[in-house]
Amino acid sequence: MRSKKQKSIVVIGGGTGTFTVLSGLKKYPLDLTAIVAMSDSGGSTGVLRDELGVLPPGDIVRCLVALSRKDDLMRALVDYRFDNGKLKGHRFGNLLLSALEKTTGSFDKAIEKASDILRTNGRVIPSTLDKVHLMARVGTRTIKGEEKIQMTKLNGSLKKLWLEPAGHANPKALRAIAEADAIVIGPGGFYSAIAPNLLVKGIPEAIRKSRAKKIFICNLMTKKEHTRDYSVADYTAGLEKFLGGPVDVVMYNNKTPRDAIMKRYAREGDALTSWEKLPKDRELLGANLVANRLHDANKIGTPAKEASLVRHDQDKLASAILGIISKK
Amino acid sequence: MRSKKQKSIVVIGGGTGTFTVLSGLKKYPLDLTAIVAMSDSGGSTGVLRDELGVLPPGDIVRCLVALSRKDDLMRALVDYRFDNGKLKGHRFGNLLLSALEKTTGSFDKAIEKASDILRTNGRVIPSTLDKVHLMARVGTRTIKGEEKIQMTKLNGSLKKLWLEPAGHANPKALRAIAEADAIVIGPGGFYSAIAPNLLVKGIPEAIRKSRAKKIFICNLMTKKEHTRDYSVADYTAGLEKFLGGPVDVVMYNNKTPRDAIMKRYAREGDALTSWEKLPKDRELLGANLVANRLHDANKIGTPAKEASLVRHDQDKLASAILGIISKK
Repeated sequence: MRSKKQKSIVVIGGGTGTFTVLSGLKKYPLDLTAIVAMSDSGGSTGVLRDELGVLPPGDIVRCLVALSRKDDLMRALVDYRFDNGKLKGHRFGNLLLSALEKTTGSFDKAIEKASDILRTNGRVIPSTLDKVHLMARVGTRTIKGEEKIQMTKLNGSLKKLWLEPAGHANPKALRAIAEADAIVIGPGGFYSAIAPNLLVKGIPEAIRKSRAKKIFICNLMTKKEHTRDYSVADYTAGLEKFLGGPVDVVMYNNKTPRDAIMKRYAREGDALTSWEKLPKDRELLGANLVANRLHDANKIGTPAKEASLVRHDQDKLASAILGIISKK
Repeated sequence: MRSKKQKSIVVIGGGTGTFTVLSGLKKYPLDLTAIVAMSDSGGSTGVLRDELGVLPPGDIVRCLVALSRKDDLMRALVDYRFDNGKLKGHRFGNLLLSALEKTTGSFDKAIEKASDILRTNGRVIPSTLDKVHLMARVGTRTIKGEEKIQMTKLNGSLKKLWLEPAGHANPKALRAIAEADAIVIGPGGFYSAIAPNLLVKGIPEAIRKSRAKKIFICNLMTKKEHTRDYSVADYTAGLEKFLGGPVDVVMYNNKTPRDAIMKRYAREGDALTSWEKLPKDRELLGANLVANRLHDANKIGTPAKEASLVRHDQDKLASAILGIISKK
């Protein structure tokens, strides 16, 4: 399906933000690759890792669904979460990927087969095939596992972040990065989407060396315990620290959603990322990137009846990215 | 896919015997329909019924796999049984069908979609869409559930067998029976494959009324607690009691497998069905119907390295059936 004429875009992340970027980009004739974080240890994915010894399926499955060209029913099936008994909380797609890993004997083949089943427009590549866990030194404590780190206050007291065992880059990921015309990093949490990819040995080096245009899509919101009061400049500096070098373009939202929603976030200690402080010496693209229809956190990319979360709009993101990469 | 020229065959059952018949017949240009028992209450299927409130997926999934034209990996996936943690014992195909039932909101649509995914050569129809359990009066005790009835000694003390609630026939099953050129019943256990279909209101009447040739494939073996010392004549009489009328043809095995295997069965109190007593006034077809390669009871239709169970041979059964239905 790859063609010389198609621009090749690598999207790095894993969470909801990556789902949104991929959902938008797949509508264009692009050669798309998602490189996905492999340190998830929570929820259905965490249970499957513990009980079956599989690699974490959750973020991979989300990206496969984002890239799927299959009908809605097939997507709804993969997205289905069992709600009773011992299966409670398991997303069907996670069980699919884990059963494929068991029957094929390889996570790589499992993803390939799942891509066939879902007829994806693009490839999904785990950043590492090592069974890694995210580790954090917070003050004098060492915390193991992405899930626990997500629930820990890190502002000002995070000393060090690393993977255990050290994750070695998946060669397929390195090749995709080397051959990319553009690399899109984010949007996504530092501890669920950005760091778990950039802590993998070989990945930041490969990105720095790649001739691709490096685009950072800045987070819409700050997070009380992790990125309190962050501006676009702070987020960019945070990313570039993990990356060990500069990005070329920073894309950020500059539209304030309606008051009622912002107040709800404020009660939780979260806020809109401020664009008063912007990074210097970077190409900047500020625009309204917010989705008008708000989303249900529980369903992969499914609009909810009740507005609940502020999210990036997949089409606004995709057309902004296309605008950047089609510049001479 | 139906064509006027293709003979239409309805196979009634649900267990391993039906898997074997369907696997053999699907290689021929036939219009195939499996009508499947819906009272299974054991194993993975029983847990899913209890915990999720779904209809029993197990036998349906086995028939779908038998009819599948997909590659071996897809069949292996559906057949995969989780072996650890809370998922332990669940066959992936059962989770697939149950998740499809939840997402489509209908067991019927779930089977249709699973048939698409597995590209089946034929249709699989539940005999009833009511949530039935098999019930038995044994002496003065009432026993609920196919799983428990399977483990109960019934010889001589079974007073009554029924479904609760009364199962009403799936209209699709009645239509298939009415339009069939041949109806193949069995091979299969009375309490897992035969009775649960023939106790459904409307099914035996429809079979009796159908102009189809009615073929009974007699069980290879007797079962200590249920059909001890049964001959072909006894099995046929047992079936015809459930059916309320005669079949046209009785097909039975008349080849004795090698001694070592028979001795193993004898130690369990089981034996080869005797063909010394044959039913009267029926067309009879006795032949070597035993598989040379023996099978692993744990895997759907997968030959095991170690011979373990005596099974019908799918190709011998299929060509015998074809011989009967192509007679003028």
